[in-house]
Amino acid sequence: MHKNDIKHLQRAIDLAAKYGSDGRHGPFGAVIARNGKVLAEGWNAVVDSFDPTAHAEMQAIRAAAENLKTHELSGCTLYASCEPCPMCLAAIYWARIDRIVYAATKEDAAAVGFDDSLLYEEMAKPWPARHVKSDQALQEKAARMMKSWAENPDRVHY
Amino acid sequence: MHKNDIKHLQRAIDLAAKYGSDGRHGPFGAVIARNGKVLAEGWNAVVDSFDPTAHAEMQAIRAAAENLKTHELSGCTLYASCEPCPMCLAAIYWARIDRIVYAATKEDAAAVGFDDSLLYEEMAKPWPARHVKSDQALQEKAARMMKSWAENPDRVHY
Repeated sequence: MHKNDIKHLQRAIDLAAKYGSDGRHGPFGAVIARNGKVLAEGWNAVVDSFDPTAHAEMQAIRAAAENLKTHELSGCTLYASCEPCPMCLAAIYWARIDRIVYAATKEDAAAVGFDDSLLYEEMAKPWPARHVKSDQALQEKAARMMKSWAENPDRVHY
Repeated sequence: MHKNDIKHLQRAIDLAAKYGSDGRHGPFGAVIARNGKVLAEGWNAVVDSFDPTAHAEMQAIRAAAENLKTHELSGCTLYASCEPCPMCLAAIYWARIDRIVYAATKEDAAAVGFDDSLLYEEMAKPWPARHVKSDQALQEKAARMMKSWAENPDRVHY
């Protein structure tokens, strides 16, 4: 653990408690910091913002990236009141965040009715075994389009 | 496959090709439909909107939910030019989308430089084995806060 870790993690828990107390926000909070400086905070806003992706970690990542005018948060630490779900964990990777400090676990989340543990199981399954139904078509057409994209020397990779 | 599946999937590929052609958007597109009616479209906007979470599927989910003023997209099908990454797949579950139709695979994405396959491997690992560093603290405190939240009879679950 580093200097200020507990302070930032406590703030993530405080955000979860504060916004969760009205019953219209899930009990989750997050803070993103770099070199000891807080860049953004987030709290769960799924219900009140009509956005199923508005988990605390996602909100903090989006706010930090917008504040810094970049899609890349290298060198940042994300503090989360609860272990991130697969959506938020994958977003952490896409944002190139280096480190996570979390408090409660996905089992604690499951105990109050959130599907995080189930989602981790679903991620690991092949399509036919997943709860969500799936079909595939036009693979070659789409793969060809992606190859054309990759051949553009001016593309911005991320 | 259902009626209109190919039409909607082709539209997702066309969106990917259209926005991807300027080199500032990843080559990914998505369409959400319910009962044959298109509710929203999305395309990758990570670079130009400074948002690492702005994958095509996420954009389509956020737009559909905002249009319908709900966080719940039951009965919807998501059409994606490429197999969703773990972030987008988990978002599909959180949004309660019933079905996915996709074209290219995560291996096709890897072939043009996107980490989707790697991310699926990372999801399945325990924390110490993952590339992202992690620490945990204050678990009991956070779990207690979440239990208090769950005891509020007026909370909106999602």
